[in-house]
Amino acid sequence: MPGDDDLLFPADPTTRALARELFGLVKEQPLISPHGHVDPRLLAEDAPFGDPARLLIVPDHYLTRMLHAQGVPPARLGVPSVDGSPVATDGRTIWRTFAEHWYLFRGTPSRIWLERTFRDVFGVTTPLTPATADEIYDGIAARLVEPEFRPRALFERFGIEVLATTESPTDDLGAHARLAADGWGGPGGRVITTFRPDNVVDFEFDGWAANIARLGELSGEDTTSYDGFLAALRRRREDFRKAGATSSDHGHVTAGTAALDHRQAAAVYDRALRGEADAADAELFRGHMLLEFARMSLDDGLVMQLHPGSVRNHNQWLYRRHGRDVGGDIPQATQYVEALRPLLTAYGNEPRLTLVLYTLDETSFSRELAPLAGGYPAVYLGAPWWFLDAPEALRRFREAVTETAGFYNTAGFVDDTRAFCSIPVRHEIARRVDAGFLARLVAEHRLPLAEAAETIVDLAYRIPKRIFRLEQP
Amino acid sequence: MPGDDDLLFPADPTTRALARELFGLVKEQPLISPHGHVDPRLLAEDAPFGDPARLLIVPDHYLTRMLHAQGVPPARLGVPSVDGSPVATDGRTIWRTFAEHWYLFRGTPSRIWLERTFRDVFGVTTPLTPATADEIYDGIAARLVEPEFRPRALFERFGIEVLATTESPTDDLGAHARLAADGWGGPGGRVITTFRPDNVVDFEFDGWAANIARLGELSGEDTTSYDGFLAALRRRREDFRKAGATSSDHGHVTAGTAALDHRQAAAVYDRALRGEADAADAELFRGHMLLEFARMSLDDGLVMQLHPGSVRNHNQWLYRRHGRDVGGDIPQATQYVEALRPLLTAYGNEPRLTLVLYTLDETSFSRELAPLAGGYPAVYLGAPWWFLDAPEALRRFREAVTETAGFYNTAGFVDDTRAFCSIPVRHEIARRVDAGFLARLVAEHRLPLAEAAETIVDLAYRIPKRIFRLEQP
Amino acid sequence: MPGDDDLLFPADPTTRALARELFGLVKEQPLISPHGHVDPRLLAEDAPFGDPARLLIVPDHYLTRMLHAQGVPPARLGVPSVDGSPVATDGRTIWRTFAEHWYLFRGTPSRIWLERTFRDVFGVTTPLTPATADEIYDGIAARLVEPEFRPRALFERFGIEVLATTESPTDDLGAHARLAADGWGGPGGRVITTFRPDNVVDFEFDGWAANIARLGELSGEDTTSYDGFLAALRRRREDFRKAGATSSDHGHVTAGTAALDHRQAAAVYDRALRGEADAADAELFRGHMLLEFARMSLDDGLVMQLHPGSVRNHNQWLYRRHGRDVGGDIPQATQYVEALRPLLTAYGNEPRLTLVLYTLDETSFSRELAPLAGGYPAVYLGAPWWFLDAPEALRRFREAVTETAGFYNTAGFVDDTRAFCSIPVRHEIARRVDAGFLARLVAEHRLPLAEAAETIVDLAYRIPKRIFRLEQP
Repeated sequence: MPGDDDLLFPADPTTRALARELFGLVKEQPLISPHGHVDPRLLAEDAPFGDPARLLIVPDHYLTRMLHAQGVPPARLGVPSVDGSPVATDGRTIWRTFAEHWYLFRGTPSRIWLERTFRDVFGVTTPLTPATADEIYDGIAARLVEPEFRPRALFERFGIEVLATTESPTDDLGAHARLAADGWGGPGGRVITTFRPDNVVDFEFDGWAANIARLGELSGEDTTSYDGFLAALRRRREDFRKAGATSSDHGHVTAGTAALDHRQAAAVYDRALRGEADAADAELFRGHMLLEFARMSLDDGLVMQLHPGSVRNHNQWLYRRHGRDVGGDIPQATQYVEALRPLLTAYGNEPRLTLVLYTLDETSFSRELAPLAGGYPAVYLGAPWWFLDAPEALRRFREAVTETAGFYNTAGFVDDTRAFCSIPVRHEIARRVDAGFLARLVAEHRLPLAEAAETIVDLAYRIPKRIFRLEQP
Repeated sequence: MPGDDDLLFPADPTTRALARELFGLVKEQPLISPHGHVDPRLLAEDAPFGDPARLLIVPDHYLTRMLHAQGVPPARLGVPSVDGSPVATDGRTIWRTFAEHWYLFRGTPSRIWLERTFRDVFGVTTPLTPATADEIYDGIAARLVEPEFRPRALFERFGIEVLATTESPTDDLGAHARLAADGWGGPGGRVITTFRPDNVVDFEFDGWAANIARLGELSGEDTTSYDGFLAALRRRREDFRKAGATSSDHGHVTAGTAALDHRQAAAVYDRALRGEADAADAELFRGHMLLEFARMSLDDGLVMQLHPGSVRNHNQWLYRRHGRDVGGDIPQATQYVEALRPLLTAYGNEPRLTLVLYTLDETSFSRELAPLAGGYPAVYLGAPWWFLDAPEALRRFREAVTETAGFYNTAGFVDDTRAFCSIPVRHEIARRVDAGFLARLVAEHRLPLAEAAETIVDLAYRIPKRIFRLEQP
Repeated sequence: MPGDDDLLFPADPTTRALARELFGLVKEQPLISPHGHVDPRLLAEDAPFGDPARLLIVPDHYLTRMLHAQGVPPARLGVPSVDGSPVATDGRTIWRTFAEHWYLFRGTPSRIWLERTFRDVFGVTTPLTPATADEIYDGIAARLVEPEFRPRALFERFGIEVLATTESPTDDLGAHARLAADGWGGPGGRVITTFRPDNVVDFEFDGWAANIARLGELSGEDTTSYDGFLAALRRRREDFRKAGATSSDHGHVTAGTAALDHRQAAAVYDRALRGEADAADAELFRGHMLLEFARMSLDDGLVMQLHPGSVRNHNQWLYRRHGRDVGGDIPQATQYVEALRPLLTAYGNEPRLTLVLYTLDETSFSRELAPLAGGYPAVYLGAPWWFLDAPEALRRFREAVTETAGFYNTAGFVDDTRAFCSIPVRHEIARRVDAGFLARLVAEHRLPLAEAAETIVDLAYRIPKRIFRLEQP
């Protein structure tokens, strides 16, 4: 069933036939992955993956949070603790616990992601049940020791043309250096980095002061002054560009931007260094730095991505027990129109700037993001993200934004995943949903098939390559 | 037409056939009604219903508000006035007035609810028009004098397994005592109560001070102190549990919660007793009491339900003329993420607590409620409520929440109605919409039919029974 | 393809056949256009239109903003500048530039609007491409010099029964006087005006003080006092009624209303005259004036329309270069429930008042607007507006509001356009979407075909005529 060629296509036979035809045009197109969280060491080291549970369950917070919500704590799935409390360590036991709760994922994208990964990556077609858990575990484990299942081999099998990882300015980019040495990285390479400076821009980030010190070391600039801080960021952006980066990424609580003058910004930064900045200072400085980064982008050409609206570590129990990024974040309502005004007034009409906006709040699709992307040369609408990265939400996205922004002010799909093996199926789902949406336009005589055919290839391949400036080294 | 077996199923033949098959599995399942507003005296007394207008029109604010919106004031439909102004009293005249405006309900759930009630409960299949109004009135009136149309007989015919009514702590639970004496009530009984303490928790509730005094009398505790107030609530919860209650319900303007310490809470309560509490105090105390009730729930096992977001008595003309609950409430935007933080930080990861969240603001479905329900062990997502309790909204609910929360973090359908005769059709509609949604998942190869079949029975029967702790006395 | 008779109908054959049948009932119904921005001089003068680019491209901000968003500045499309910067003037060159970017409009309503205008108005069926740009330009240009393509001839060919333009109180209504002299205007005429007083009510409007002086001149009242201001507005409303107006229209940033007493209102007005009013004063006065206009409406019978939620001139670069109304406005979140409370408490239950509410924030459809329209006699829900005036949004509107407000608390379609030639296709799209929605209700056995047939004629013709009081002179 998960193998069916018509997965996710509308049931109406006319529409389905069109969807099948359109999807056929992009099924084999190379994958462009301009934003994600795969660990670059994976590909730098190219070592065999660990056991199936450690590869597919333990690090996937979509999975562990769902079981937690149903009373199976992350420790039973082997999620590492930060407080020293014991966690499960046996891969097979973790796998069995997961299999017992597999029914919870009916109707979720994780269901499709995992089933397709089992089948298409590992050749395992037996449906997962508590009774088949061991068989599937063993089947995958047997594959993982084979050389064809090492990361680089899979990368090539997956048809990935370019994959961007995400690093902070306090990263030495060592993994990317090794990739470049092997001919896999650097400008125009297959694996590139992305400049994500939250941990030095956001005073509220864990260990901000230490990060600032580390930034100073790595850049050779004196980050105890605001001017030195800016100089350090510029230097590190240059390092990132040498490691192939074509974009920066900014994960902020809000979409707030602010136009401080140099003196004001320096004063806030100094307060933060003295440990005297409050929450309003932090918000102001984050907002101001988006304008600074826009200015830097005009110089060095990095595309800006903005990911606002996630309340980090809302689940405090999870945070204290297991740390960040284990499923404890919750979206909140996010306003863009007044929030982005300072940035857009300054640079929104500048065609040399590219600003890709994401959201976890789908109410902004038709009300704010499509009008902004369809009205400012700099603005593009990023793919539905995280909680919205699933078939129904992807469909709602196209339905909500296309009438105002068209297809060509959207930036193409990004998988945004740390789950390397799920990259192909994530792109496949996005392509299937787009095929279904375009098929409906054709079936309802809103677009000729020939134009839909051109559009789907644009969406799957040409647009992300162009918007994220991946066209040449 | 309203009798058609395919009511509400998608028109595509493949999907429709699947929906029919899935619905067939739950069509005859007993009804679980864990939250609603049927008057328990109805079943305690088991007297014949009044005339058709008094039974079906006068008390139904979905109906009277729609006619009011089109210039037919509630008085013409016999809605009792609180200001002494005259209202229509002749059932047949009211019925005729209603029939003249029946066309207003095209496309609304009331249309389906009433047509199915006419047909399935009373055997009346003639379509309602001004010309047939008398015929239908007479047909129903003739049934209402028969013993098979008394409340308990209908209860059994409807296949209701358990029905929860809703009472406040100032209710003596006399009707429930009579039901228990007849073998219909009490723990594990067919008719149980629900603890709804808004009228003693909300300083802004009409007659709050008198309610506090009444609470003291009924509980034998001294409610002139905060400690006595808490003790009184605990005693009354025990009384409610003896009347079968398995849950409490909380209707608040916002979802705000607050973690006051004992001294702070007592101070606010004392200000309210002295008549000196302001709106901020009232909001703070409501929010604080949700944490208190969570603590009580950990002791006595009552499930908590939270219904926020209704601006009560927005229509002041209606309120002054006809009082509460006659169609004058309007929803407003409701935020959950920061509002619930105090409660969820304290008890959200406690699997022994069950907190069912409802909303009138569907923007929260994908953005807040599904992530919360899919991330906290205590949280479940309640069925679409009130203005959202209709086929299109029920469908949007599943489309918006399933990808993040799955099916198993939703709490099952609740009819939430005071219209006793509409209970079967309300559950039928929810089951039909779920059948249509699951059929689409099957038709699009997202879920095997066998799993969809298991899921629909879970949704219709097993999940609400488990979540609302109705499994054993 | 754009000529296909099934444009926009659902692909399922059963539903499509029903949609076709329902649409057939309204296809030839006269067009009621109770709100829009066509320049009345167009019809008063009845001169031939300019070249195709000046007619169809230059004034259409849906088109120019999309190209601007993709790096083609409005100057290249001939949009007049306000800062003296040069703009393209050759119609053919503008047309070619537009044709090169025609692919951007895939999936947008502009695509359908223009294609249908080419075909149905000008008989041009060649698809627009860069290669065919000249052919189409020449084809349309050849038509535009023919007498059958003058405005009044098109008006009759389009089957427009009544068209309302929009003027401010500082307009002398000269064009309408000429129309009346020709038997085309005045009360009950084919072309009528609408009273839109934003430029004298909103202190923040460009040139407010000059507008107040002009209002004084035109009305013969002393607008240097608040009483004179009110008297001037009443006089001008009378002038507008003589020019056929049956409604007023109010474009405000928010839906805020306020109940100031006479002394308070006069004080705010005086502050504004002295140049001392701040933003809060402006908001308060706008809100207060909505209550004043409601009182005037109770006297003179003008329907009130409220269009809130547009942040005007968000794109400051566009505003400075090209002025207002060139695509630089962006919607924002809009609340109605508390905002309208003062107005609705005062007049919401008054059946003699008609208040039509519009929105750019579709989150308010099910949450606020449908409950308000379905609960207050005065309130009607206006058609989806501007960014929401497109097939997918029109469908979402019906899906979101019908279950609470039914069809009969909605006010019918308004095209709201300044693009005269697009009026027929805009109404056609709305009728097709309604046909598709009603067809689904029929196919799902929620409404008998006969009632759907009556409903679609009501929606297309009878309801707007009644709500906007166009039934008799």
